[in-house]
Amino acid sequence: MRIGDVGEFPLIERLAWIAGRGRADVVVGIGDDAAAVDLGGEDLVLLTVDSQVEGSHFVRGCIEPRVLGRRVLAVNTSDIAAMGGRPTHALVSLVLPTELELEWVEELYRGLAEEADRFGVAVVGGNVARCEDGIVLDLTLVGRVRREHLLTRAGAKPGDMALVTGSLGEAAAGLYLSSHPELEIPERDALLARHLAPTPRVEEGQVIGAAGLATAMIDLSDGLGSDIGHVCDRSGVGVRIHAAKLPVSPAVERVAEQIGKKAWELALFGGEDFELLFTASPHAAGVLAERVSAGTGTPVSVVGEVLPAPAGRRLVLPEGIEVPLEPRGFTHF
Amino acid sequence: MRIGDVGEFPLIERLAWIAGRGRADVVVGIGDDAAAVDLGGEDLVLLTVDSQVEGSHFVRGCIEPRVLGRRVLAVNTSDIAAMGGRPTHALVSLVLPTELELEWVEELYRGLAEEADRFGVAVVGGNVARCEDGIVLDLTLVGRVRREHLLTRAGAKPGDMALVTGSLGEAAAGLYLSSHPELEIPERDALLARHLAPTPRVEEGQVIGAAGLATAMIDLSDGLGSDIGHVCDRSGVGVRIHAAKLPVSPAVERVAEQIGKKAWELALFGGEDFELLFTASPHAAGVLAERVSAGTGTPVSVVGEVLPAPAGRRLVLPEGIEVPLEPRGFTHF
Repeated sequence: MRIGDVGEFPLIERLAWIAGRGRADVVVGIGDDAAAVDLGGEDLVLLTVDSQVEGSHFVRGCIEPRVLGRRVLAVNTSDIAAMGGRPTHALVSLVLPTELELEWVEELYRGLAEEADRFGVAVVGGNVARCEDGIVLDLTLVGRVRREHLLTRAGAKPGDMALVTGSLGEAAAGLYLSSHPELEIPERDALLARHLAPTPRVEEGQVIGAAGLATAMIDLSDGLGSDIGHVCDRSGVGVRIHAAKLPVSPAVERVAEQIGKKAWELALFGGEDFELLFTASPHAAGVLAERVSAGTGTPVSVVGEVLPAPAGRRLVLPEGIEVPLEPRGFTHF
Repeated sequence: MRIGDVGEFPLIERLAWIAGRGRADVVVGIGDDAAAVDLGGEDLVLLTVDSQVEGSHFVRGCIEPRVLGRRVLAVNTSDIAAMGGRPTHALVSLVLPTELELEWVEELYRGLAEEADRFGVAVVGGNVARCEDGIVLDLTLVGRVRREHLLTRAGAKPGDMALVTGSLGEAAAGLYLSSHPELEIPERDALLARHLAPTPRVEEGQVIGAAGLATAMIDLSDGLGSDIGHVCDRSGVGVRIHAAKLPVSPAVERVAEQIGKKAWELALFGGEDFELLFTASPHAAGVLAERVSAGTGTPVSVVGEVLPAPAGRRLVLPEGIEVPLEPRGFTHF
């Protein structure tokens, strides 16, 4: 069998089965946004790695290297945020063709350093290697979280509410606009920025973790419709998402209208918003929404409710009809 | 200017200048075998990342994936060993073409898991991404070291001895044999194994660190002739290496003879032996050599002495003539 026939998540599961043995100092191993390990300190240490591959994640001429540098750090920071943690240190592994302009790499690093400064991350090491076929950027991000503030994809309970920070579908709208310069949308620049250089919800994640009230959390990288499935898998629950409750901005409404889609479709199936999805009891949900918006200014919306596993994953369409929630979204392989 | 015109080490320096700001919790940043950071625990946390790029570091048909998996973990483990630490947790980032056989990746992971078990490493996460152009394997290794046991490339002092563990040139001899199947050497398999799946000197590094007597340490990945230069750079010293004192096995002598080279040339300029090079005062050198060989069974040899910086980097040839030590060895770019 070939990798392309296996699928991304089954592949990870197979590899985890081979190499991911449990151990007392591994609090969270393979299969969450970040690993959480006990290295003897008061806090747990969070570890995550992500790649940006030329041709697959970015096209060299279509993104400024400085923006790409910010993006590389941001997407990893989002994974630390999803555990309730704060990022502290980064390692950067660069695989570069010899013909690449030095200025390109320096600009990449300037963007990386800007974003690192913004989130209190120190770049402490890395590696450079050669590959004439294209650029691969691998960033490893280390973070910290107090043990009692750690949130994972496991822990959601039937009866919990499902909530998201901010608004959804903007990155997908920006992605669409990036290949359709003819579309006239007043918010074009803001949506493009949301697509190219997302803002990880670090403060929001820490507020949610510190409250000790949420039951599970994940960041929305592949899209809510797909990512909610990871929470269901790890928590052993089902879910009902309400299309009408998905937070969408007027800008996303406008783009959706122009391209003949529904805004909730962009919100549900568009990837890379890097908002946080979390679950909490109905009472805790209200407290958390208030604390996040008071502490960070970011709105929080209830988008659904957690169900027992046999109920499966459901989507209530705006007209009230309930259908199975298809795990569409972005996957590798 | 293009990356290929800059050179590997100047490139790293330029990037470190852009992104590598100092901070109180960064004990060792960019430019050593691993970073050492303070995450609030009693021990320092060591962080290192290394890539294996298809076509550049390995050829798919020329190395068993299981051996490659062991190798990927081993070379990173060597970097942790060079700081006096022990490895604890790993993240694996895989960039894979869709046409790759699943069995290949599973075998890679089996090798990785074997080596991880051997050194007490838990694989706690990673990433998979697609790239049709070839395989890139990135491994991030986390380790721990007691603050007072940490050794870096800085700290060597004029008057110190320079010592190495084990024997040199075997990986280079193995590399040569791998492309010359016609050469008849009784130790062929052992030398090939040394080239393909090196053994990091983890116990040795910990004995050296724990003794509190060494002044600097580095692992020999590019070759002694090149790597000693990093110690000189970071310590602000010169060095004199004696070709006649380099530890070479009869097997390396035999290969050298067959290919018309001197054994000391393989030992000095051959890369990937993954032995440890360390420095210590003449008295401490004797104590350390004894502790390492008593504690691990690995012999230690004095190969030279540390000089003041103005003396530069010198090589005493077997016939007694002293010449400048050229920093030959393996570099990217």
